[in-house]
Amino acid sequence: MNKPLILLGGGQQASVIAEILLSEGRNLVAVVSPQLISSASPLAGIRRLVSDDELLKNYSLDDIQLVNGIGAIPGQDLRWELFDYYSNHGYRFASVISPHAILSRYLALEEGVQIMAGAIIQTNATIGKNCLINTGVIVEHDCKIGHHNHLAPGVTLNGSVTTADRVHIGTGANIIQGIKIGYGAVIGAGTSIVRDVAAGQVVIPAANRILL
Amino acid sequence: MNKPLILLGGGQQASVIAEILLSEGRNLVAVVSPQLISSASPLAGIRRLVSDDELLKNYSLDDIQLVNGIGAIPGQDLRWELFDYYSNHGYRFASVISPHAILSRYLALEEGVQIMAGAIIQTNATIGKNCLINTGVIVEHDCKIGHHNHLAPGVTLNGSVTTADRVHIGTGANIIQGIKIGYGAVIGAGTSIVRDVAAGQVVIPAANRILL
Amino acid sequence: MNKPLILLGGGQQASVIAEILLSEGRNLVAVVSPQLISSASPLAGIRRLVSDDELLKNYSLDDIQLVNGIGAIPGQDLRWELFDYYSNHGYRFASVISPHAILSRYLALEEGVQIMAGAIIQTNATIGKNCLINTGVIVEHDCKIGHHNHLAPGVTLNGSVTTADRVHIGTGANIIQGIKIGYGAVIGAGTSIVRDVAAGQVVIPAANRILL
Repeated sequence: MNKPLILLGGGQQASVIAEILLSEGRNLVAVVSPQLISSASPLAGIRRLVSDDELLKNYSLDDIQLVNGIGAIPGQDLRWELFDYYSNHGYRFASVISPHAILSRYLALEEGVQIMAGAIIQTNATIGKNCLINTGVIVEHDCKIGHHNHLAPGVTLNGSVTTADRVHIGTGANIIQGIKIGYGAVIGAGTSIVRDVAAGQVVIPAANRILL
Repeated sequence: MNKPLILLGGGQQASVIAEILLSEGRNLVAVVSPQLISSASPLAGIRRLVSDDELLKNYSLDDIQLVNGIGAIPGQDLRWELFDYYSNHGYRFASVISPHAILSRYLALEEGVQIMAGAIIQTNATIGKNCLINTGVIVEHDCKIGHHNHLAPGVTLNGSVTTADRVHIGTGANIIQGIKIGYGAVIGAGTSIVRDVAAGQVVIPAANRILL
Repeated sequence: MNKPLILLGGGQQASVIAEILLSEGRNLVAVVSPQLISSASPLAGIRRLVSDDELLKNYSLDDIQLVNGIGAIPGQDLRWELFDYYSNHGYRFASVISPHAILSRYLALEEGVQIMAGAIIQTNATIGKNCLINTGVIVEHDCKIGHHNHLAPGVTLNGSVTTADRVHIGTGANIIQGIKIGYGAVIGAGTSIVRDVAAGQVVIPAANRILL
């Protein structure tokens, strides 16, 4: 568990992740980023690898663990694809749990789960591999979250919500208790979900803005 | 205040409550539950009473305090009825405050109040008896919450909101400053409340979901 | 930074601010309030000045710092005007950061910023002078908040949101990533913002409540 870490991605999401790792004194030895790193970033000064090939050539899967630093945006699958790509090569992903998250002791967290500051995961919840549980998200008791989910900042899932894989729940959306959400569904920012959502469905708030 | 505790209910909400009690080293001597307890629950291994009669027969009101472990769902009054039933028999209810809740030092909390992880109660608020202030709820300064209220996960009450008894505010609903909500009103998940709500009123978001 | 403090305002918002200052052992020597202070307030017992003139006459700008205790409500500019009035007289405003807020170490916070309990400010965010970041607000990575903004309780700003000066974002509103909000805009409680908002615009949820 305490192997040196390599971060995939050098952008804004990677900076948030890096700040957590550095605050915990984790040994972050390199970052994979085709672009230069901002000098103001927590990543400044860390060895930069310009490609996945450079990583694969120089770091054995026995010597390091990976951290996914790619953001999660609907329609962009890079975050999920990178996880599968490196997993297929035998690499393992470390989890990243903010010291400011609140976690029940009765949880099942799978490989590479990331839980940001202020997120709360309640009793008997399950979080699938490579999920990003973002800032201030609430996952209530007995929720079962599939693999490769993104729960955006401020999302609230009430008790016993179940999601399939690759579900995206947008900023501040609210899901009532017992709802099931299918594979690849996208829930728009601020939407309240009170009925089950089918696989592939995109749900957004309707005409809910008036300009005065 | 440090009497042994008996938990009413053995379901999902009871597990969340039990985790708080056990993390604080409280002496939880029994749980009342007609159903068997899951072996994965924080309640596993605690003495089970199958009925209220078994409790009344075996535990004197001088020797124990009760904890309400029943969930709060609109249209189901068991949580409120049990509180009144045992109160009428002279039993007292202990409060349950998560160590991860943030409480002002200038509050009035009545008997049996329950405040879950991440909830924030600001200066000069009042919370009535048997209220469940759920995960991540914000109760701003000078709010006055009646008895038997349920504020579901992610609810935000801005300053000086007043609620009567038996009010249910659903997942992630937002109430602006100074609003008054009448007896027994139900506010649907994700609703924004900007005008006072009459007693018995049910308010839900209108047609705010589009399927793409 | 450790000069004695004088609080402008003696109302409800001032009580929340005062509780933070007192919990940190800050030296609060006076409060400016034309009205009497409630005996239940954290401000009870603190010397009261009845007017700005009394402050200006008795306290030199070298000896004290000010704290803005005026609430922020759309259409009421007193909070912003007082800051400018005293700044023009050469006085300086102290910042107020709740010990229960979660702040990245990579932030730029300007003069007089106030951050309430449970608020989370992520990596590389910027907060302009005299902003009130209220209870439980989420400001994600790389947001740039102008001067004199009020982010009401429960607001969520996803990454890289930019606001101009004097923006008001209402209770529980959600702003998706990358949005720009113009000078003086008002975002109504619970609104989801998915497009840029022009200067002076007022945006509220449309007809989103049904009474059953």
